[in-house]
Amino acid sequence: MREAGVSFRYDAPEPSAREFADAFALLLRDRPAQLDAYTLGGTVEVFEQACARLLGKEKAVFMPTGTLANHLAVRALAQGRSRVLVQEQGHLFNDSGDCLQRLSGFNAVPLGHGRAGFTLEEVQGALRSAGSSRVRVDIGAIVLETPVRRQHGALFDQGELTRICAFARAQGIGLHLDGARIFIASAYTGIPVADYAAAFDTVYVSLYKYFGSPCGAVLAGPAALLEGIHHERRMFGGALNQAWMFAAAALANLDGFAERFGRAVAVSEDLKGRLRRLQGCSVSDIPQGTNVFRLHLAAGLDPAAFQARLAAAGILLPQPEADAFYLKVNESLLAMPAEALAGHFGVALDAARGGRHGWN
Amino acid sequence: MREAGVSFRYDAPEPSAREFADAFALLLRDRPAQLDAYTLGGTVEVFEQACARLLGKEKAVFMPTGTLANHLAVRALAQGRSRVLVQEQGHLFNDSGDCLQRLSGFNAVPLGHGRAGFTLEEVQGALRSAGSSRVRVDIGAIVLETPVRRQHGALFDQGELTRICAFARAQGIGLHLDGARIFIASAYTGIPVADYAAAFDTVYVSLYKYFGSPCGAVLAGPAALLEGIHHERRMFGGALNQAWMFAAAALANLDGFAERFGRAVAVSEDLKGRLRRLQGCSVSDIPQGTNVFRLHLAAGLDPAAFQARLAAAGILLPQPEADAFYLKVNESLLAMPAEALAGHFGVALDAARGGRHGWN
Amino acid sequence: MREAGVSFRYDAPEPSAREFADAFALLLRDRPAQLDAYTLGGTVEVFEQACARLLGKEKAVFMPTGTLANHLAVRALAQGRSRVLVQEQGHLFNDSGDCLQRLSGFNAVPLGHGRAGFTLEEVQGALRSAGSSRVRVDIGAIVLETPVRRQHGALFDQGELTRICAFARAQGIGLHLDGARIFIASAYTGIPVADYAAAFDTVYVSLYKYFGSPCGAVLAGPAALLEGIHHERRMFGGALNQAWMFAAAALANLDGFAERFGRAVAVSEDLKGRLRRLQGCSVSDIPQGTNVFRLHLAAGLDPAAFQARLAAAGILLPQPEADAFYLKVNESLLAMPAEALAGHFGVALDAARGGRHGWN
Amino acid sequence: MREAGVSFRYDAPEPSAREFADAFALLLRDRPAQLDAYTLGGTVEVFEQACARLLGKEKAVFMPTGTLANHLAVRALAQGRSRVLVQEQGHLFNDSGDCLQRLSGFNAVPLGHGRAGFTLEEVQGALRSAGSSRVRVDIGAIVLETPVRRQHGALFDQGELTRICAFARAQGIGLHLDGARIFIASAYTGIPVADYAAAFDTVYVSLYKYFGSPCGAVLAGPAALLEGIHHERRMFGGALNQAWMFAAAALANLDGFAERFGRAVAVSEDLKGRLRRLQGCSVSDIPQGTNVFRLHLAAGLDPAAFQARLAAAGILLPQPEADAFYLKVNESLLAMPAEALAGHFGVALDAARGGRHGWN
Repeated sequence: MREAGVSFRYDAPEPSAREFADAFALLLRDRPAQLDAYTLGGTVEVFEQACARLLGKEKAVFMPTGTLANHLAVRALAQGRSRVLVQEQGHLFNDSGDCLQRLSGFNAVPLGHGRAGFTLEEVQGALRSAGSSRVRVDIGAIVLETPVRRQHGALFDQGELTRICAFARAQGIGLHLDGARIFIASAYTGIPVADYAAAFDTVYVSLYKYFGSPCGAVLAGPAALLEGIHHERRMFGGALNQAWMFAAAALANLDGFAERFGRAVAVSEDLKGRLRRLQGCSVSDIPQGTNVFRLHLAAGLDPAAFQARLAAAGILLPQPEADAFYLKVNESLLAMPAEALAGHFGVALDAARGGRHGWN
Repeated sequence: MREAGVSFRYDAPEPSAREFADAFALLLRDRPAQLDAYTLGGTVEVFEQACARLLGKEKAVFMPTGTLANHLAVRALAQGRSRVLVQEQGHLFNDSGDCLQRLSGFNAVPLGHGRAGFTLEEVQGALRSAGSSRVRVDIGAIVLETPVRRQHGALFDQGELTRICAFARAQGIGLHLDGARIFIASAYTGIPVADYAAAFDTVYVSLYKYFGSPCGAVLAGPAALLEGIHHERRMFGGALNQAWMFAAAALANLDGFAERFGRAVAVSEDLKGRLRRLQGCSVSDIPQGTNVFRLHLAAGLDPAAFQARLAAAGILLPQPEADAFYLKVNESLLAMPAEALAGHFGVALDAARGGRHGWN
Repeated sequence: MREAGVSFRYDAPEPSAREFADAFALLLRDRPAQLDAYTLGGTVEVFEQACARLLGKEKAVFMPTGTLANHLAVRALAQGRSRVLVQEQGHLFNDSGDCLQRLSGFNAVPLGHGRAGFTLEEVQGALRSAGSSRVRVDIGAIVLETPVRRQHGALFDQGELTRICAFARAQGIGLHLDGARIFIASAYTGIPVADYAAAFDTVYVSLYKYFGSPCGAVLAGPAALLEGIHHERRMFGGALNQAWMFAAAALANLDGFAERFGRAVAVSEDLKGRLRRLQGCSVSDIPQGTNVFRLHLAAGLDPAAFQARLAAAGILLPQPEADAFYLKVNESLLAMPAEALAGHFGVALDAARGGRHGWN
Repeated sequence: MREAGVSFRYDAPEPSAREFADAFALLLRDRPAQLDAYTLGGTVEVFEQACARLLGKEKAVFMPTGTLANHLAVRALAQGRSRVLVQEQGHLFNDSGDCLQRLSGFNAVPLGHGRAGFTLEEVQGALRSAGSSRVRVDIGAIVLETPVRRQHGALFDQGELTRICAFARAQGIGLHLDGARIFIASAYTGIPVADYAAAFDTVYVSLYKYFGSPCGAVLAGPAALLEGIHHERRMFGGALNQAWMFAAAALANLDGFAERFGRAVAVSEDLKGRLRRLQGCSVSDIPQGTNVFRLHLAAGLDPAAFQARLAAAGILLPQPEADAFYLKVNESLLAMPAEALAGHFGVALDAARGGRHGWN
């Protein structure tokens, strides 16, 4: 049954359009929402204040996408300085269409080639390099993404992160955290999100990756810095006429998220243990990883048959990459006990072997 | 009663959050919607195709806001040419935060100072001026807005529009129609929207001004021109993770819109006739106007009392400007017959006089 | 003989390459010059300091062209504000390739359509218009050009200029004077150049229009504002490896320029009086004009023959525009007394009539 | 005596202002020059045509600086594509003030960290990375600098260069050679400059680094690509009112340059052999180097005394870096035979030892 389905495909469950609309109508009966005017006021403002509190920042501002949240943060922090240090494997350098460069004229210097993070030494090298230029170029901001999507949710090394942030502060360089999935990181590291955010001037968090909103993001930081940023949001074409739906949906899911996601993690850990005891597959963790784990099928097993059998049981897997499935833990795991899940995986392994099902 | 309320404040009715959510959940039972992936596919695509057909264009693309729709249209049309001719009174020159200039480096030359439109002669003058430059500068696009919000919905003169478009085509200059309210214009002029659109390469239409979607816009034009524009949409931070809600809501309202809006116009015309027969107020039309009309109170009458009395009857007026109310006709007028509306206005005039009823 | 020639074609005499090189080698014997390093130090610096003194500003910086001087001034003054008010007939709006918009993202709003200057009321209107925007847009700078090249050297009305500057200062809007020909204006109005400059934050003066340098410009203003501007100059590709030649040439001509140009003006006034007494031509001044005057030939006279005859006498005229020659007064007029010049014009008028010369 | 001086400080001799002016006046007697109009026509054009022939390109265009030449080449080649691959150690990435990014919105991706060149594999990796983006980003151009100033004149590996150029051509990626010193490279490798240029679409050559002009650069490439580039030059503020001086000076030095520079190289090779036989210093070449060599003083010797003693003999050294002098070979070496030069170095070594001459 679709409604009770489990999906390992994303960081969030996958409700259908109708499920979402029904749940949303129900939600509004309990939690009346107020309209906003081009993303200003009403429930949007209530939500922004809740986020600011949670992230330990003075102010939070709704953004339609993370791409815009990251971009406007850098514009605010750089203050006329042209260089921005980013992860070579990060979302901002790879998957934002070179917006920093094309629309705002930044030189986004990539560090940490092929790795989840980069080092303080690389930052210092970039600073020396800028300092040796025949024309003055200054570093306006450093953007860190953690966990890193392109590295299967691996964390930026926390010790290095701390050293980099301390150094950057001393140098007057702005610090932005691309914390799209920082609440997930927190569930794994036990570090409160506000502690993550405290090392940075600004932080972006996604609303749809795990907060149950169909879209949206929030950018939090110092009030003085973000004061007029809704003008920039509008100039970029990001001032939705009404954004209360997203704020209302995310607001409802903020409450109790940590507890619910924690339970989903527990299910996944239980499941991983059980999977390790099955024949025909092996399970491995991502180094410095979070909510993604690798499931390898043994040689000779048919991944398509495996995936199809699970789908028939209402369990969705992502497409395999090379010889492995990268499974994502999210709240949909709460729909089925680990034991039942493991049972379905076992049956699917049989199917992948081309064999018949054992229970008749 | 709020639900059955009539609002003269916007181009659209004003449902509350809960009204919207309930109606939306209901809608989805009749018209199942399909999810999209970052605004690609699913119901979004179905909606885009419906818009393209309606506007007589090969392709239509969902945009989160009209600001982005206008901006990306100009980027696509200009093809490296730096000058864009715009209305001095238009939305793009006034209310888009100078996005064309700041983010894309266009020189947006304002024409038609203080007027709803501009003339072919002004276009030709701008072309001569560009041609006389010591450094080559070319005109890449002309953007026309009609009806014009800042001019109370006045239309760009149709004869002039036709002459300008013919001239621009012959010169190889791109043509974009800021048709945020072009369906409203059509209701008043009887010119089909596809006929308006035919004179231009690209056209933008708003989804929330009268199509019942909380936000969104659509940009239509030649397939070759708009082929890769979703990449630009994403670079600007406008690729909503899910946009099917807006597509589904607007799609449902497209059907029968012309008929419903036509009935609302009929109510408003009836109402205007009745208001003209009342003492204490006068009604005047906007020259070349559309769905906005002026209501003046006679000297000595209290606008605040007038507005409050109507609000008590579930009829919302905009804030007065100078000595007049600019009332906007929209589908909410269907909630009450003209006679009843006129009755409430009469009572409100009494209230504005300080209590006595004038005509008995 | 070319060397003793008189040219009415530009704001400056027209030495040949060899004349320039010989004069320059001679000049360096009297006034030894010091090399610079990418336009920093040496004679360039000496020259910059002399310009700063003359213009009453704290600092002056050499620029390769006026286009760059104007552009960098606006970048420095605007400080993140996107709107710049310029003359519709000015060099910056017309003849700089839309550099402000294309390279720096400014919205350069043109005022004073078709006229030499604009009014305080137009400035205030532009400020109101920016203030009424739905997205905050601020006016960062006003650029005034006087005299105006495209208006045949007409001056920006001085009273209006004073009112505009006072208003802009009170509003915190930056003020830049495109004073390419401000030394010429000074020669006609008697207003010292430093007095012109005092009303503005920054001022640009051309080095080749009348100071005898083959190229170059200088930008003067507050030290704090111009401190790091040589970095911008270099980023734009304007840091000439050696610029001492231009500084040395202009420096030599600064001394005594006012006196010499004053004598040239006297010759031109004498000449105009004599020309008015000749038959077959009429002379008229430009309203609010400076060093340009109109010479009309009577109907039936052949402009080409007229021009050719003067050229044969070593007197160069510009190409006629419509039915008139626009003659420019410059230091080359010192090469011939007014009486002799008038004589040649008389002979040329005969030639233009197709007639023979009278004195043989 | 200054005039006959030898300088190891730059790629060119160091004439004083007066020397330059005298030589230039003399030069013009033999080679009359024609004025240009804002860098168009006259001797500038003659010079551009000579450069085009020499470099084997259809067209060459004068530029005031190499910074602008490189920048405009990339703008012309990229054709709307946002990514440009550059050397991490190159002039364009380090010493041009981030002009590509700040003024033109390119994402300049640095390759070859800390090395003179980069590899085809790095180029292919960058292409894969762009291809994996969620938003389409295309690589518009590759810029190669050889020899590399920041690597003491080391050459980009020629085999790798050939492979990269072949690959890029096949991919439709534009190719630009920052050949500021390509005539020097040619003197060392024996590869004709036109052969270097043939692998690229466009090539920039400096006019002041060794061609005896006080400033300037030339950009050569296909006629269709460079047709309108003088408009861009003017928009950037790089259209010098007169540039014939630079064209005339460089034109005169083009003739016979290869022969003269070849003789200077021979002197330097002779000198290096003699220096190797002296006690107290050692000489080493730069790997893949060109006209720069390292001179180390033995421990205990005083570099300042060494440098001062040579300066007294009219031989200028650059400031030492760490424990070595990086000497640059240029035409000034023709002013003194290698034997005499070596003699002065020997005496200077004595001075560096504190006074006594070592080998007698």
